[in-house]
Amino acid sequence: MPAVAPRSGEAIFASAEHVNAELFTLTYGAIVRQLLTDLEEVDEVNKQLDQMGYNIGVRLIDEFLAKSNVSRCVDFKETAEVIAKVGFKMFLGVTATVTNWDAEGTTCSLVLEDNPLVDFVELPDMCQGLHYCSILSGVIKGALEMVSMKTEITWIRDMLLGDDAYELQVKLLKQVPEEYPYKDDE
Amino acid sequence: MPAVAPRSGEAIFASAEHVNAELFTLTYGAIVRQLLTDLEEVDEVNKQLDQMGYNIGVRLIDEFLAKSNVSRCVDFKETAEVIAKVGFKMFLGVTATVTNWDAEGTTCSLVLEDNPLVDFVELPDMCQGLHYCSILSGVIKGALEMVSMKTEITWIRDMLLGDDAYELQVKLLKQVPEEYPYKDDE
Repeated sequence: MPAVAPRSGEAIFASAEHVNAELFTLTYGAIVRQLLTDLEEVDEVNKQLDQMGYNIGVRLIDEFLAKSNVSRCVDFKETAEVIAKVGFKMFLGVTATVTNWDAEGTTCSLVLEDNPLVDFVELPDMCQGLHYCSILSGVIKGALEMVSMKTEITWIRDMLLGDDAYELQVKLLKQVPEEYPYKDDE
Repeated sequence: MPAVAPRSGEAIFASAEHVNAELFTLTYGAIVRQLLTDLEEVDEVNKQLDQMGYNIGVRLIDEFLAKSNVSRCVDFKETAEVIAKVGFKMFLGVTATVTNWDAEGTTCSLVLEDNPLVDFVELPDMCQGLHYCSILSGVIKGALEMVSMKTEITWIRDMLLGDDAYELQVKLLKQVPEEYPYKDDE
């Protein structure tokens, strides 16, 4: 049982400002296309999307903490549930399932069956190996680093590459004790 | 008076799928940053954003027509009002004002005072001349071309460059009579 009572992802999603999902989907598609043109190698595109996501995540965590009333998670298990049920819902309007925990409770998978990033997307053959949604792994990694969790995130399944769901494996590498790095405004 | 009774932008916006506006804003910011790094010249970045917007607009028009019940506008004046009041509201959640009509009724301005693309954005000095929101002009141009209106769109005012609003001048260059280029499904 979580020790905190965060607002539901649904409630936060409903109260925040929005833009049309198709506009977002097409805009994201434009980024991926641009990177494919500029970088050519799909591995490089994956890396760049991940890096963009990281930069977004380190900022989005502020919005998340401000709106969700989530303060501190008891452990990594609770953190994963909060990402899946509150974070995904709040930003993308969908929820993920947390599964495939290892014995230590430091590695799990987030599974998405519905994903607004990929509506209408079909990958041409030249894109084998592209993890189109790599921005998501970056966002999670960036956001978690801001709350002192260093993670490694790997795509396990990808519907655009023929799998039956999107599965992101999240591995907790290191948890730095919180030291309040932010100073009050002077 | 419009001859058609389109659904209000508000109603369409409420019924469509959404994503969080801040996620969209940060994602768009990541594109602009990427292009600034890759292309270096702000004029090239403006052009590329406009081109990306064009590609989005030629697809977004389908969603617009499907959801808005707007069929055919009587004239360019009505078209401009529909973009400002229905299109902007439907996709970005804000409305624009139509103003500065020329005598021929072929040039007007769309003025935006609230613009979710620019939340939290500040341009460094090296970005003078960047029209950060150039994707918008591209979207409008692309969408209008799909309904047989060739336009030229120019940024007149830009709040990120110190102006008091965003003003896009839309000039109708040519209106091709509609010929129903789409065949019914066979």
